[in-house]
Amino acid sequence: MAEQSPNGDVETKEVEQQDQVVDPWSVSGGADGRIDYNKLLEQFGCSKLTEDLVERVERLTGRPAHPFLKRGIFFAHRDLQEILDCYEKGIPFYLYTGRGPSSEALHLGHLVPFMFTKYLQDAFNVPLVIQLTDDEKCLWRGLDIDEARRLARENAKDIIACGFDVSKTFIFSDFEYVGGAFYRNIIRIQRCVTMNQVRGIFGFTPEDNIGKIAFPAVQAAPSFPDCFPHMFGQRKDIRCLIPCAIDQDPYFRMTRDVAPRIGHLKPALIESKFFPALQGESGKMSASDSNSAIFVNDTPAQIKDKINKYAFSGGGATVEEHRAKGANLAVDVPWKYLNFFMEDDAKLANIGQEYGAGRMLTGEIKKELITVLTDMVSRHQRARAQVTDDVVDAFMAVRPMPCV
Amino acid sequence: MAEQSPNGDVETKEVEQQDQVVDPWSVSGGADGRIDYNKLLEQFGCSKLTEDLVERVERLTGRPAHPFLKRGIFFAHRDLQEILDCYEKGIPFYLYTGRGPSSEALHLGHLVPFMFTKYLQDAFNVPLVIQLTDDEKCLWRGLDIDEARRLARENAKDIIACGFDVSKTFIFSDFEYVGGAFYRNIIRIQRCVTMNQVRGIFGFTPEDNIGKIAFPAVQAAPSFPDCFPHMFGQRKDIRCLIPCAIDQDPYFRMTRDVAPRIGHLKPALIESKFFPALQGESGKMSASDSNSAIFVNDTPAQIKDKINKYAFSGGGATVEEHRAKGANLAVDVPWKYLNFFMEDDAKLANIGQEYGAGRMLTGEIKKELITVLTDMVSRHQRARAQVTDDVVDAFMAVRPMPCV
Repeated sequence: MAEQSPNGDVETKEVEQQDQVVDPWSVSGGADGRIDYNKLLEQFGCSKLTEDLVERVERLTGRPAHPFLKRGIFFAHRDLQEILDCYEKGIPFYLYTGRGPSSEALHLGHLVPFMFTKYLQDAFNVPLVIQLTDDEKCLWRGLDIDEARRLARENAKDIIACGFDVSKTFIFSDFEYVGGAFYRNIIRIQRCVTMNQVRGIFGFTPEDNIGKIAFPAVQAAPSFPDCFPHMFGQRKDIRCLIPCAIDQDPYFRMTRDVAPRIGHLKPALIESKFFPALQGESGKMSASDSNSAIFVNDTPAQIKDKINKYAFSGGGATVEEHRAKGANLAVDVPWKYLNFFMEDDAKLANIGQEYGAGRMLTGEIKKELITVLTDMVSRHQRARAQVTDDVVDAFMAVRPMPCV
Repeated sequence: MAEQSPNGDVETKEVEQQDQVVDPWSVSGGADGRIDYNKLLEQFGCSKLTEDLVERVERLTGRPAHPFLKRGIFFAHRDLQEILDCYEKGIPFYLYTGRGPSSEALHLGHLVPFMFTKYLQDAFNVPLVIQLTDDEKCLWRGLDIDEARRLARENAKDIIACGFDVSKTFIFSDFEYVGGAFYRNIIRIQRCVTMNQVRGIFGFTPEDNIGKIAFPAVQAAPSFPDCFPHMFGQRKDIRCLIPCAIDQDPYFRMTRDVAPRIGHLKPALIESKFFPALQGESGKMSASDSNSAIFVNDTPAQIKDKINKYAFSGGGATVEEHRAKGANLAVDVPWKYLNFFMEDDAKLANIGQEYGAGRMLTGEIKKELITVLTDMVSRHQRARAQVTDDVVDAFMAVRPMPCV
């Protein structure tokens, strides 16, 4: 996946313009620095993930929806109802997500799509492919190739620590897996897409290197099951559902456009909002600025320190003002983070009420968040400690995986 | 190799302009329809293959130079003297050539680089890699992928029939071999080349598909030995010599420009003139027009018929005129073909004298040519009949080949 950028190392554009810009490499809000997600739905032409769809997911899977669904964090989709139709009829489908390995350790934003994908894999009991686009990181960031491959393996450890089922999960890096049936699909896709089109979709210019220009096909190809003959044989009739942040939508709009022209089914998508930087939605969350995000290898002291020092608060400037006017939840980072990661719905609602009304103070909500994140990160660290190189090898091995 | 086009399925442009145009996809001569090879040397910036270099080849290899060298058919080079320096000092190098598999059977023009490469392999006793760009044929010609792969294997049989040493020769198709170290070099190269540059070098436009735009890196990469770990391990210090028709020079100019930027040695080149169509240098030799060329699977009757009917003659319009003025060898196709394929130097010189002076008639030189080609094609057919699928598999297997 090119970049889970807005959950990741998003380059937030210095905005002079009033219009928001969202593409796989940069996200900038409108005049107020905020993302208008309804506008984005319209702009991209994807569908709102409505409550009745969430209920249908619950009904079909017989388990409560993931908080990311209930809370509208995954808020958009394309053809999700068709995937649910398949599931209802017992027709197989598979999941595809990914990551561009650009940093040693993931931050919490990076975890969002993987936590959600883990839930989907469990709920639907389906195969999953995870692409690590080490090639893309070399093309965009000039990363050394061996370093990109090393980071891909390191990132795979954090991904595996999210709890995926090795018997149903194939993790691959492009530098290791491009070739054969995968490469043939890349060429099939590239044949259907012109420079003019990628200029329109991704904003590429003639100054861009030819690897960038060709890359969208590399991210598109895993949407097609015959890229994975060890999982799906030659079958082309298995649908793909892609959980990702909505900035990745352009890749899959392109993929969906090409699919029928090369005899493939269109992938479906389920798309999330962006995970904000500590400094707020208009801030830049970057792996190179360790104070912009909580990383999965941060210590409890670091977590506490970062939240207290950097997490943008929507609380009043003084205690008096706060008591009088309450917090502005729409811009409050601790509140937003809790919405992502606090599991207890009732408690979360209560915090929202109390803090929004000014009865709870900024220091108090930050304390709640520190507890939640410290717990979550330490659980992650314990899980990751179990992920040896052998475990990584097991997930990344091209092995017989009769999945369907 | 993108296309040995001018020895192959060259699209000869309808020339309104006075200037000759030579690129990997089309060749057109100047005002008189002929190629000015001296101008091409200057335009491309490669060096003339001088007689003293040919003599040095003979001295170093201890055998007579190939007729293609003695007769100026391979007429240009880049850094050939450095390859000879290596050879003299016992420093290893390897050969790289290729073909875009677009037709069922090769024609004689397609054989030229392979016949010459076979000579080089024998004379220098060096490893050889042969790229079959089945991907390229899909990108340019819309060929079905499985059909391109099938043609690649069919073409491999004709190539193997040229007599290569299986212990030193690795034949690969891109659809089978792209991946791993090869893919990593492709990305390294793509990172260094912009759309603007491929527009300048190859004339690509924004209407071109992104596969075409990225493809030059796929043809460039085999110039670097670490694409072939089963042959050269991780070594980057083994030089590459590329025998090809001069229309392929743009690919390798690009490659030579990129090489030092990614820690690789520049490949050297030895480049040929074009093998003309039966209809003459300004005619179009095409696999889709069976009367434009002699194919390696033509029968003796077809060869005789094509030469007699279609081979453009520089002879006089009438016997009287011919006797009086002689033949114009500069445009005479039978004479050109004999220059490629008649082994006997003395006999060839004699034919040139007699025919040029008008003492030998067009019918007579065509008869000589029919004998030479019928013999050559039947030898080829006998050799090809020995090339079973197992033999193809042996040449194309990624197997330990400790070459250096």
